[in-house]
Order: sequence, then structure tokens, then C-alpha cells
Amino acid sequence: MRVILARMAERDKLLFTPGPLTTSLTVKQAMLRDLGSRDEVFLAAVREVRERLLAAYGLSQGTGWEAIPLQGSGTYAVEAAVSSVVPRGEKLLALVNGAYGERIVKIAAVHGIACEVLRAGEDTPIDPGAVRAALAKDRALTHAALVHVETTSGVLNPLRAIGEVVRAAGRTFLVDAMSSFGALPIEFEAAGVACLAASANKCLEGIPGLAFVIARRSALEKIEGRSRTLALDVFAQWRGLEKDGQFRFTPPTHALLALRQALLELEREGGVAARGARYRQNHERLRGGMEALGFRAYVPREHASPIISTFLYPAHPRFDFQDFYRRLSARGFLIYPGKLTQADCFRVGNIGQLFSRDMDALLAAVPLVLREMGVVLGETRNT
Amino acid sequence: MRVILARMAERDKLLFTPGPLTTSLTVKQAMLRDLGSRDEVFLAAVREVRERLLAAYGLSQGTGWEAIPLQGSGTYAVEAAVSSVVPRGEKLLALVNGAYGERIVKIAAVHGIACEVLRAGEDTPIDPGAVRAALAKDRALTHAALVHVETTSGVLNPLRAIGEVVRAAGRTFLVDAMSSFGALPIEFEAAGVACLAASANKCLEGIPGLAFVIARRSALEKIEGRSRTLALDVFAQWRGLEKDGQFRFTPPTHALLALRQALLELEREGGVAARGARYRQNHERLRGGMEALGFRAYVPREHASPIISTFLYPAHPRFDFQDFYRRLSARGFLIYPGKLTQADCFRVGNIGQLFSRDMDALLAAVPLVLREMGVVLGETRNT
Repeated sequence: MRVILARMAERDKLLFTPGPLTTSLTVKQAMLRDLGSRDEVFLAAVREVRERLLAAYGLSQGTGWEAIPLQGSGTYAVEAAVSSVVPRGEKLLALVNGAYGERIVKIAAVHGIACEVLRAGEDTPIDPGAVRAALAKDRALTHAALVHVETTSGVLNPLRAIGEVVRAAGRTFLVDAMSSFGALPIEFEAAGVACLAASANKCLEGIPGLAFVIARRSALEKIEGRSRTLALDVFAQWRGLEKDGQFRFTPPTHALLALRQALLELEREGGVAARGARYRQNHERLRGGMEALGFRAYVPREHASPIISTFLYPAHPRFDFQDFYRRLSARGFLIYPGKLTQADCFRVGNIGQLFSRDMDALLAAVPLVLREMGVVLGETRNT
Repeated sequence: MRVILARMAERDKLLFTPGPLTTSLTVKQAMLRDLGSRDEVFLAAVREVRERLLAAYGLSQGTGWEAIPLQGSGTYAVEAAVSSVVPRGEKLLALVNGAYGERIVKIAAVHGIACEVLRAGEDTPIDPGAVRAALAKDRALTHAALVHVETTSGVLNPLRAIGEVVRAAGRTFLVDAMSSFGALPIEFEAAGVACLAASANKCLEGIPGLAFVIARRSALEKIEGRSRTLALDVFAQWRGLEKDGQFRFTPPTHALLALRQALLELEREGGVAARGARYRQNHERLRGGMEALGFRAYVPREHASPIISTFLYPAHPRFDFQDFYRRLSARGFLIYPGKLTQADCFRVGNIGQLFSRDMDALLAAVPLVLREMGVVLGETRNT
């Protein structure tokens, strides 16, 4: 059975994208069940997922933290956090160096939340000193929101240093940890995180359709009645889970079972540190290999996260990204099809069930594809 | 392989609930893949799902209709519809005879939408004449919202007659068709439906985590900029799908593949009419069997939908619903654990991969469980 199913799954291309990801067959097989959403078997799975989400970072309910799963994509959880936490009449500082930071600005706008924006380039981390200055300048700012790893370019923002600045200034700290949760260190206590949003479907290697919020209970207790929506109400979702262990509205039972399995597999791999190390190895292998082929990385090495690798379009006149993408796809390698807003770059994801051998296979395919396209990159090396 | 997987799935209890449901093994197996959410293979599946959702009711883009899938549970789609369609400053008439109607009232409240409520009992359909009177009385009402089948009790509301009243009064008609779409007739044109919300996970027999809106294009074209949220913006989701075939935010790729398979299986079963006939048969078999055992149905036969069957708690002093539920569960039959707000009733779902033989098996288990409990119902027959 395993062999046949593995072959069935192997027909799919490898996903070098920031999600949905190539997941393990066992994660997908966990979905071959139909559980009643109010039955004890499912409620036990919900409890286990909530506990394991916290335990992945050494947190627990006992130490004042709560994990609150929510139906929908990661953006749903970010909108839930922002629109449930910031009270009417207060003001948000959005720290923006990419599309996901801009999305927080849009969320604030649609909910009528006053918002000041501090921007940096897409290849540049947010500067904690600039955050300190912005908070000092505008006393009306009550909350600050940061994207930990900006999936746009893969740039890693200094979460802890910024969190310390926000806390020292007496403001509330919100974090979009979509592309870091499960693989990168997050110092929840030291960074003074109040509320963090992430997804089952990134570094946790679950399937899409389920997101979650991790929040300090003391922060949650303050937000009753603040939500601007019914479905994305973090407080009500938390209270519902505490009352009877149930989601308020039909949960994605299959996605939750997949996440439980994915959390078990994270633990078996050695936890967040081991997963991060594998992604780092993937990232280094890819970055080094692509540079050896004549590509240039967009984000300086010291600011690059291991989640996604961003490369400038080569200057060669025959390089056409759509053609490059389609030829790699035909060979079974799906890279990310979009481009950045600020620079002509393409992106390759390093996460999911990808290993060094997969990076090597992609690196072996790239020169073949370039040759087919008539693109010679040797001369651009070392520029 | 099929045998082993079937046995694995068979360990799960049969779900006699209004969703999540017992789905086919082939629907669940459709999730054993990881597709890139921006890749052509997945985008073709999205197009196919959008077309098949319309085609199930003889609709098409060519005749002015759009199907717009959205991440999340059914409630997300209802909130999306209400908060995307009703403009600021206008007023909604909510037609309420159960918990899902009340939920629309809550959605209006959280979004600051003025809302007038017309209520009927949980066993009583909404009266079209009362709707006409309410609309005539309050000229400020611009929209009316109806739950087609109230999952609370299973009562079937007269969609077409109410839709005709709403249209004749020149108002916009919104429908929650969560528990009817896929199994009951919906006369979209004759009922003047502007926007209808439903879910993959009810009569379509997909898995939870994916919902959708069916809307008249002429209605959609008017609602640009009305949404009160980012994630639940029906207009933006539609425009995004039309632009590049993609969801705006990470789609639940596995749930979508399951829905595609479920729509194929709906067609193979003979479409909406055949599915509705199977559910009707399940419902009649169950209702007749339970009445023969001495139970009394809550909703009069002429108002009962075939989706769910609601029975009054028997008056016998030894009947304890929690005990009844647990004993049936131990025998592999999961009924709905909640009770109604207005009456001491319990509910049994008739939808999903349930057939006459399953209703017979449940009907064979009920007297065994009653005997264990020391409950004798013979004397309550014909009361």
C-alpha cells in the first residue's frame, strides 16, 4: 500500500514554494478519516494540537499562553489578530518591508484602525532604532505589528530586538510569524509577544486551510468585545475552545488531523531547531549552487532567512522568467511564479518535505534549462 | 490497497450529523496530493469546481452567474456575503426561525448593519405574507436574508415564494443555503437570488474548510468597495479569480481537490435530484422507524426537510440524552449532540455517505440502547 500511494503522490511536482508545500504522505494520510466535530475523538485531537503548538516553543497554558486554531488561511489569522486586538480609537504602527507588511496596513484600513507605517526596503530588515523613534514621536501609537520573516523576499526581521523596543515603550506587540513558526527561534517571553499569527501550512508542514493565533492569556483577557467580525473573533474562538473544546463554527477536521500528524513529525525530526537546521542546509545548498551557476541572491546573506531564496533575474537577454518557470515545471520542479514589487527577482522555497537531494536535483536541472533557453551565465559570476 | 484503506476508514463511526459528514473514501483520497496553488494543474481544478458548482443547478457564467469559493467554514461565507453585499447606511431584514438565522442577526450587529428581524418558531417556516408586510412597513429595508433549510430543526423555508415577495418589493435577496445546496431544488432565477452562501461539506459531501458564494454577476458588479473585511471580501475574491484564476490568499488546496471529486460523484449519482431523493429516503426511513419505536418528530412532516430529523426527548423518566448519545456512539453511530433552544429535541443527520442500510442499522441499535437504559416507549406511541 505504501509503495502504491507513494508512487501516486510522486506524480506531483516538488513544490519549491512558500506554501502550499510538499508534505509527507503520512500527513496527507491522516486525512483519510471523517470525525464528528463535537465528538470526543476529535476534541482530543484539538486539545493535543493546541498543546503541541505551544510546546514546540516551550510554552504551555500553565505558563500563561494560549494556542487558538482558526479556520482559513494565514491571512485570516493575521486579520483576526489585528481586528480582534486593537481597540477602537487606538493606533497601530505597522512595520513594513514587503507584501505581507503591506497586507497588515490594508487590514487596518478596512477595519478603520488608525495606522502609521514604518517602511524599509524589501531586502532590508526593520531597524529597531527606527521603531523606537517612531514610537517616541507619536504617543497615540498603542500597538506595533511586525512580520517576522517577510515571505516576499525571505528577509528576516530582528523580532526580539524590536519586541524589546515595543515593550520598553509600553506598547502591545503583534507578530505575523507565518514563515517562521516551526523552524526559527521565537523568544516569546523576551520579545514581549502579545499575539502572534501563523499557519499549519508553512514550517509546520501541515496542509492549508487551518491557521492559529498564539497569545498571552493576560493579553487575551483584555480583548473581549473588541472584534470587528464574527468569524475572525480571536477572543470568542478562545472562549469557545475553553468552554467545551469545540470550534465555534464547523472546523476543518481533516486539516486539523493533518496538523496533529505534522506536529508529531516535527517532534520526531528533533523539533524547531532540527527543522530550522534542515531548512538552513537546503537554503545554503541552493544559494551556493545558484551563485556558482552565475545567479545573484537579492537579500544579503546576513539578513536572509532559510525559508525562501530570492535571486535577481540574470541580465542575459535570452532570460525570460515565464519560460524558465515552465521549463523547470516540466521537469517536475515548481518554483514560485510571482515576482517582487521592488526588484526583478524570482523566489525558490526551501521548506516542506525538501531535503539536500531535492536541492541538488533542482540545481542539476537549472543549467539544463538555461542551456535550452540559450542563456549563458558564466560571465555574470562574481559581479 | 483499497481494502486496507477502507478498513482504516471503517474504524470511524458513522456520522449522523449535519456536518462534518461521512464522506466517500475516494473524496478523501483526492487529498493525497500536494499541488502548487498558483500552478496550472490546481488552477484548472479551481475552474472546474467553479463551473460544476453552477452546473449542478443549471447555471453558468454564460447566463450571468458566478461561483466564488472562499476558505473557511460555511459561517465565513455567510458573513462574507452579508458584510460584502449590504452597503453602509442600508438595512437588512433577517428572517429567523433558528440558530443560523440568529447568526445572520449577529453578523449584521458586529458589522454595524441596521437589521430588522422577523421571527417564526423553530418548527415553523417563515411566512411569505409576513415578509411582504415587513417590507411594506419599513421602506428603509433594502435587503432580506433567509436560511433555506434551518439546520437547527431541519425546517424547510419556502425559498421561492419568499424570493418572489422580496423581488416584487424591489429588495435584494440573500440566502444561506448551507443545508440545501446539492440536494434540494433552488430556483435561482425564479426566486430572484442575488447572493447565496453554502459549503463544500454538507449536501455536496466534500470535506470542511471550503465554502462558496453563488451570485448573480449583475449583483456582484455593484458591490465593489462595500466589504468590511479583507479576507471575507466577496467582490475582491471574485475579481482575483477572474484576473488570474487564483484565490487571493493561500487556498485549501486539498479541500478543493476533495470538492472536485465530490462534485464528480454528485454528477455520477444523478445530480441534485438523485441526491435529494436518497436523503429523502433516508429521512423517511428514519422518521417512520423512530415513530414506530415511539419517538415523536418535532417538525410537522409537511415542513420537514430531508437533511436532518429532529425528535422530541421522550417523556420517560429514564431517558437521558447524554446517556443515549454515548451508548449509540459506543455502537458506532454518532448523532448530533446538541439540543434545540426552544424545545427538548435531539437531531439525527440524514446526509453524507449514508444509505438505507445505515438508517436500518441505526434503527436496529436504538431499541437495544433504550433497553439498556431501561426506557420503554411503547406507551407513548400515537400520542
